[in-house]
Amino acid sequence: MNRTAAMMKLEDQLLHPGVKGLPITQPLRQGDIGARQWSVLHADTSFPVALLKASALEHNLQWMRGFCERYGVQLAPHGKTTMSPQLFDAQLANGAWGMTLATAAQVQIAYRYGVRRVLLANQLVAPADIKAVLTLMHRDPSFEFYALVDSSAGVARLSQAAQQQRMERRLPLLVELGLAGKRAGCRSMDDALALAREVAAAPGLELAGIEGYEGLLVGPDRDQDHEAVRHFVTQLSDLLRQADAEQLFKRGEILLSAGGSAYFDFVASGFAQVKNLSRPVLPVLRSGCYLTNDHGFYHGLIEQLNAREGLEPGQGLRPALEVWSMVLSRPEPTLAILGMGKRDASYDMELPRALVSHRPGASAPAALPDGCSIEKMNDQHAYLRLPAGHAISGELAVGDLIGCGISHPCTTFDKWPLLLTVDDDYKVRGAVNTFF
Amino acid sequence: MNRTAAMMKLEDQLLHPGVKGLPITQPLRQGDIGARQWSVLHADTSFPVALLKASALEHNLQWMRGFCERYGVQLAPHGKTTMSPQLFDAQLANGAWGMTLATAAQVQIAYRYGVRRVLLANQLVAPADIKAVLTLMHRDPSFEFYALVDSSAGVARLSQAAQQQRMERRLPLLVELGLAGKRAGCRSMDDALALAREVAAAPGLELAGIEGYEGLLVGPDRDQDHEAVRHFVTQLSDLLRQADAEQLFKRGEILLSAGGSAYFDFVASGFAQVKNLSRPVLPVLRSGCYLTNDHGFYHGLIEQLNAREGLEPGQGLRPALEVWSMVLSRPEPTLAILGMGKRDASYDMELPRALVSHRPGASAPAALPDGCSIEKMNDQHAYLRLPAGHAISGELAVGDLIGCGISHPCTTFDKWPLLLTVDDDYKVRGAVNTFF
Repeated sequence: MNRTAAMMKLEDQLLHPGVKGLPITQPLRQGDIGARQWSVLHADTSFPVALLKASALEHNLQWMRGFCERYGVQLAPHGKTTMSPQLFDAQLANGAWGMTLATAAQVQIAYRYGVRRVLLANQLVAPADIKAVLTLMHRDPSFEFYALVDSSAGVARLSQAAQQQRMERRLPLLVELGLAGKRAGCRSMDDALALAREVAAAPGLELAGIEGYEGLLVGPDRDQDHEAVRHFVTQLSDLLRQADAEQLFKRGEILLSAGGSAYFDFVASGFAQVKNLSRPVLPVLRSGCYLTNDHGFYHGLIEQLNAREGLEPGQGLRPALEVWSMVLSRPEPTLAILGMGKRDASYDMELPRALVSHRPGASAPAALPDGCSIEKMNDQHAYLRLPAGHAISGELAVGDLIGCGISHPCTTFDKWPLLLTVDDDYKVRGAVNTFF
Repeated sequence: MNRTAAMMKLEDQLLHPGVKGLPITQPLRQGDIGARQWSVLHADTSFPVALLKASALEHNLQWMRGFCERYGVQLAPHGKTTMSPQLFDAQLANGAWGMTLATAAQVQIAYRYGVRRVLLANQLVAPADIKAVLTLMHRDPSFEFYALVDSSAGVARLSQAAQQQRMERRLPLLVELGLAGKRAGCRSMDDALALAREVAAAPGLELAGIEGYEGLLVGPDRDQDHEAVRHFVTQLSDLLRQADAEQLFKRGEILLSAGGSAYFDFVASGFAQVKNLSRPVLPVLRSGCYLTNDHGFYHGLIEQLNAREGLEPGQGLRPALEVWSMVLSRPEPTLAILGMGKRDASYDMELPRALVSHRPGASAPAALPDGCSIEKMNDQHAYLRLPAGHAISGELAVGDLIGCGISHPCTTFDKWPLLLTVDDDYKVRGAVNTFF
């Protein structure tokens, strides 16, 4: 099934009452959502509802394509952020080289919806998970797959499995270089190089490249981060050169991959300098959060990246994901209770940011005054604190809408099986599915 | 469709590769999962995997049934915790009076899977959400539904909608009494009583009872909590008596509802004393977390409840929900990286609790020594810190399994579309679905 046919099947499926956000009392064909012409500002939908602004998505897709072209790098966006086939499709249609994923289950879902080139930015260890991936590679010679490895134990497991499955082709692996005190990955250049030799020599495996994740270096001190990221990118490049000097790479191209959603400019500029190896180098960024950005953690980091890139405000990545909910109760003068909770919006980095209020029927949403903030969330409720003495405390009423931005798209996407795409005036255009 | 037929449909559905936890490379009929005889301890499943211990579920179902019978109260367990039709079914089969839910979407899902008596423990405000519920009531005279209200604005919306939909029966409402500084609900007895009069007089509505949620009173000081809960339960009872004295209730029974998962014994004993009203009182508890309990926040509270009830250790509610994952990397002597993250286990109250380690093939899991703890989670990874100098630091290897308990079941269930049920030896018996 190619991408288009898989998408068609999603468009044709019947959505049953109870899908969050949908105002339906009968099953509805997903592809007919746009024709209903629901307006969020008229409170036509159910609430809470998760919204993707189509214009911001489009802008971000093109922005990232331009960025990668400018630096001469490829993009395998991290699909774990959205786990949405329609968004994967849009990313691939806008020049992405492949998709990055985190688990074998995610790989199986992406494959089902037409993704044919995957970088698993993780170790592959469980027998069932190794088998899941090798089965896809065995069944479909066009399916291109890469995984990470950081230990001899990992190499041994994968080599043994590849031999047992009698694979026609070798399993391509990238050696992961890690960071002291951080997540996975070899803790020294020497260990990483030794492991690269093991991979190159192991039956059923082949060394495809070198990988690292500089996103773990985001700390409280930006200057220190930048220095550490530059150093790490240099290490990755040096490791690649050393492995190449030992002729450990046998494939047509050598992969060099890093790049989260905070410092991918440092990665891109560092990788662009890796030249004159025995074969072409393919630098691959893996940012996942560029697609929707956010109104919190990543937006702050992206504004700094914009400044480094010399961009004016508004020219950079735009927040595309919002969660709207209704005021259910106004029990105290400075408190509004919203029908949105931990089941609906991220709370791991920051609580949602209340952006606008809107009375259905009014001409347009109004920015909320300073001092309005979500101070707490329960499973299904948010506590919106209003500034004492400000007119909003008297005005905001039961039935009004609150539009919120979020911080960290990954932990909002995973709360919604369906997100609605909207125009700039919050008219519903369609929907995208997620599979978590 | 009755409950049994709806469950059958879930058993007959094909699960596709990519459903978290399932070790499949071909679609599999859900009802055939048990026949595969997967063993978690043999690492047959995919990892991470969410597990429900069948014996603990069974124990908890019976324990709660006995508790309610002893106190003469009914149970409408909060379905938002699990959102699992099979678990709803088990709760109803074990004496639950109905299900509590939090949103109109959840009501639609429960109805689809055969639930015919729902207490919406929330305000019902959005036009689409009001319509969703009234449509179910209109279509099915056997569908019994109750919602909360805490404002005149709420009463006006519901009365208007009920009249516009030309309902054959009135919409039964419970007036919500709230707590200063907390969530929804009237902030004084006088306000609540005035609102009860409004409901009783509003076309299309009827006053069904009085409701509150004492679970918001869980604070750092237990004695203070207990005093506050007792006071609140007395207030609810007094409010009910006053509304009854004014002859505001016209239905056969008067509902009196409260009861989270921490202090439901205080609620039950307080409610049992409400007698000699104009008509029978139906006391309804709403605990959601009793079904699986946990290894963290709720387990601590339940151990205190056990002590109040005079139960020996092991006689109370048992933790039924675990998340198992594999060691993907051992990058440093005291650090193991697990393939389980924010996508897989609760992190809102406490991080998961690492309980046991197990090498596939070994005879049985071994309790982890003191000092082993999950110190951080990313989206797809956990950082398990091992005690320096202890043998476990040398022993724990890539490919070993770690079994974790969680804190707060609601925020683990919502990360799993399918959870596997297991025997005490971690053999997979079957699965339950969730709909978030």
